[in-house]
Amino acid sequence: MALIVHKYGGTSMGSVERIKNVARRVAKWHAAGHQIVVVPSAMSGETNRLIGLAKEIQEQPDPRELDMIASTGEQVSVGLLAMALKAQGVDARSYAGWQVPVRTDSAYTKARISSIDDARIRADLDAGRVVIVTGFQGVDDAGNITTLGRGGSDTSAVAVAAALQAAECLIYTDVDGVYTTDPRVVPEARRLNVVSFEEMLEMASLGSKVLQIRSVEFAGKYRVPTRVLSSLTDPMISLDEEMKSGTLITFEEDEKMEAAVVSGIAFSRDEAKITVVAVPDKPGIAFSILGPIADANIDVDMIVQNQSVAGTTDFSFTVNRGEFKKALDVLNGKVVQAIGAREVVSDDKVCKVSIVGIGMRSHAGIASLMFRTLSEEGINIQMISTSEIKTSVVIEDKYMELAVRALHKAFGLDQGAAQ
Amino acid sequence: MALIVHKYGGTSMGSVERIKNVARRVAKWHAAGHQIVVVPSAMSGETNRLIGLAKEIQEQPDPRELDMIASTGEQVSVGLLAMALKAQGVDARSYAGWQVPVRTDSAYTKARISSIDDARIRADLDAGRVVIVTGFQGVDDAGNITTLGRGGSDTSAVAVAAALQAAECLIYTDVDGVYTTDPRVVPEARRLNVVSFEEMLEMASLGSKVLQIRSVEFAGKYRVPTRVLSSLTDPMISLDEEMKSGTLITFEEDEKMEAAVVSGIAFSRDEAKITVVAVPDKPGIAFSILGPIADANIDVDMIVQNQSVAGTTDFSFTVNRGEFKKALDVLNGKVVQAIGAREVVSDDKVCKVSIVGIGMRSHAGIASLMFRTLSEEGINIQMISTSEIKTSVVIEDKYMELAVRALHKAFGLDQGAAQ
Repeated sequence: MALIVHKYGGTSMGSVERIKNVARRVAKWHAAGHQIVVVPSAMSGETNRLIGLAKEIQEQPDPRELDMIASTGEQVSVGLLAMALKAQGVDARSYAGWQVPVRTDSAYTKARISSIDDARIRADLDAGRVVIVTGFQGVDDAGNITTLGRGGSDTSAVAVAAALQAAECLIYTDVDGVYTTDPRVVPEARRLNVVSFEEMLEMASLGSKVLQIRSVEFAGKYRVPTRVLSSLTDPMISLDEEMKSGTLITFEEDEKMEAAVVSGIAFSRDEAKITVVAVPDKPGIAFSILGPIADANIDVDMIVQNQSVAGTTDFSFTVNRGEFKKALDVLNGKVVQAIGAREVVSDDKVCKVSIVGIGMRSHAGIASLMFRTLSEEGINIQMISTSEIKTSVVIEDKYMELAVRALHKAFGLDQGAAQ
Repeated sequence: MALIVHKYGGTSMGSVERIKNVARRVAKWHAAGHQIVVVPSAMSGETNRLIGLAKEIQEQPDPRELDMIASTGEQVSVGLLAMALKAQGVDARSYAGWQVPVRTDSAYTKARISSIDDARIRADLDAGRVVIVTGFQGVDDAGNITTLGRGGSDTSAVAVAAALQAAECLIYTDVDGVYTTDPRVVPEARRLNVVSFEEMLEMASLGSKVLQIRSVEFAGKYRVPTRVLSSLTDPMISLDEEMKSGTLITFEEDEKMEAAVVSGIAFSRDEAKITVVAVPDKPGIAFSILGPIADANIDVDMIVQNQSVAGTTDFSFTVNRGEFKKALDVLNGKVVQAIGAREVVSDDKVCKVSIVGIGMRSHAGIASLMFRTLSEEGINIQMISTSEIKTSVVIEDKYMELAVRALHKAFGLDQGAAQ
C-alpha cells in the first residue's frame, strides 16, 4: 500500500464521460489498497472562457479579481470528480486550495507555493477516502485566492506529493510519456522509459511541452518520483501495465537505464534573433541592452556575446517571436544610441534546435558531431549556446525539421537503432 | 452619507454589457458619497448549467460536492463586477462567502446563515472601496462551502445589510416593485410604494415571487429596511428618483402610507387538492396522514379539517402539483388503510387565490366581501383557509384569472380607483 498522487489535465477532464473514466481509473487504484490524492485541472476550455469574460470587462484584468474568477474552473472539476467517484461507490471528498490550505505568496496570476498543510488530507485518507484537491491555486496569508499561472496544476500535484511524501506522482496527460523528439516531426522518435531530472528541465524549457517547467523544478527540489503517462489508455488495465508505461523522471543518475549520450532533440520555431552590432566593449553593456528589454517584460532566451575585436563586440540574443517587434522598438528607441552601437540587425525567420543529454558531460565530441551533421545537410549555424547537458543552435527556420531528423538519426535515437 | 447594500439578480448580471451597467449604477451611488456593498447573483443560466453538469455525473448529486460546484457561479460574478468597477475608476474588492466569512450551519444546499463577520468589509469601506460579496453561499465551522438554496442571494444581501446595520438594502430585480397583483393577469394592477413586512411574507409565500421568503423573514427579524426596485432603469437616473421607485418593505405599521384594507391579491396555479374522506376522528390522525407525506419530502400548503360528524371527519390539504402523484402514492400505499379512512378523493385542476392585507385585522366583513364577489362570478369555493392578514380559497383553476380580476376590483385596488 502506498500513497500516490494522480494529476489529470484539462483534456482528461474535458467531458462528463471523460470525468467518469478518470473516476474509473482512480477507483481501480483505490481498490488495490493505495491511498490516492487526485489533482485535476479545469475542464478543457473553461479557463480560457473565464479569462475571455474577464477581458471583455477589463482589458487588463485586475490580477486579484482574475484569480478569483479563474480559480473556479478547478473548483468545479474537483466537485464533479468527487461525485463521479461516489457514483461508483468510492468515498471521496474535494477541497479547494484555500481549504487544504495550499499557502502561496501574493503574486496574483503567478503565485508560488510556500507550504501545504497535510492534516486535513491525511485525516480523509486515513478514513479511507479519495481526496481531490484543486490544481492551479492556493491562498495567501491574507486569505486572498491566488493562482499559479497557466499549467500550474502540474506544480500543484507535485507540491502535494512532496508535502505528503507520496511514493509517486503520476501525471496523466494526452501523451504517453517523454519522447526523444516530437514524433510529429520524426516518426522514428522513441518514448524514454526514464529521463533524468536535469534532462527533463532542458526538455521542458525547450518546447517539449509535456510538463510545466516549474513542476519539474519542484519535483527536483523535493525529489518526488514523477511519472508522465497517458490518460487515454483503457482505465481498467492492470496497475503493473500502468507503472511500466509512461516516462519516469528520476533523480539518481545511476538509475538511468538508457546509455545514450544524447537523450533527446528539442526544438522551438517560436524564435527571433536580434544582434546589436559594434557595441563598444566596456563594463555594463549587457545590462544597458537587456535591462530595458526586461523592463518591457520581454523574456530573453539565448544570449551570445563574442570576444571583442578592435574594441567593439556584437551582442546577440533571442526572444519569443511574438515579442520581436516590441523588443526592436525598445532597442531602436533609445538604447542603441545611448550605448553607441552601430546598428541592430534582426531576423524572425529562425528556429532553435538543441541536443540534450546527461551523457554529454562525460563524452567529448558531442557538439562536433552535431555541427558535422548539420553541415552535411548544408545547414548554416547562426548562433551557438552550450550548457553542461545541452547544446543549442539557431538556424534558418525552414531547415528545422530536416535538422531535427538528421540529429535524431546521428545520435542513434531512432526506433530500432542500437543504443 | 449612508451605508447601502445593493443586490442584483442573475438577469441583471446576465451579460458583460449588463454587468457594466450594474457597475455604472454602483459607481453613481459611490460617487454620491455612500458606502456601498454589492451582493450579485450568478450570471443567469450559470447555476442551472452547473447543476446540470452535476446531475449528468451523479443522478442525486452529493450535497457537499454540489455546493462546491454551484457556489462558483457567484464567485465569477463578484470578480467580474469588481473588474467592471475598476475599469470605471472605482476601487473595488470582491469576497467569496468564506472570505468574509459568512458563517452557516452545515445543511448543504439549504444552509442557514448563523453570523457574518463585518471586519474585513468595514476595513475596505473605510478605505473608500466598494465591497462585493458573493450571494447564495457561506462556510460552515469545518471550513466546507455551503449554499443557501435557490434564490439565496436575496437572503445573503439582507443578512449582510443586517450585519453592517445598513441604512437600506436595495434589491434590484427585473420587476420595479411589488404589485397589488400580477399585472399580466390584471392590467390595472398598481405598484405599492410601501408594503408591510407581514404582507410581504404572505405575498412571497403565495406566489408573488419578487423576493425569496427567507430574505423577508431575515429583513423582519433584524428590521432591515428593504426596497425592491428595477435594475432596468437608466443607471444614471438621480438617486432621488431611484429611492422614490420600487416598493419599500416596512416594519412600522403607522408608516404605512396606503389605507387600503387589502393590499394585494396573490394566486398560485401550481396546486393540487387531496381529501381523505371519512377519517375516524381521534387524536393523532393529522399526524398519521401528514407524517408520511413529510417523510416523503412533500411540502404541504393549506390544511383544512372540519368539525366531525358522526365520529368521522374529512381531512383536506394541498400540495404542489408536481408532487401530487407522489403524495397520492404515499396515501394509497398504506396510510388510508392504517387509519381506517374510507377513501381518498383528489383534484389537480385547482388553484389558490388569496387576499392579503394588514388592514383586515381591524375590519370586519372582508372575507364575506371576498366570498360574495366570487359567488357573483359563479365561482364555487372548494376550500377556505384564513390567517390574521390573509384569506385563501381553493377554486377550479379555469376561474383563476376571473377571480383575481374580480377581487382586485372589488377591493378597490385597480389603478385610478379611490383608496
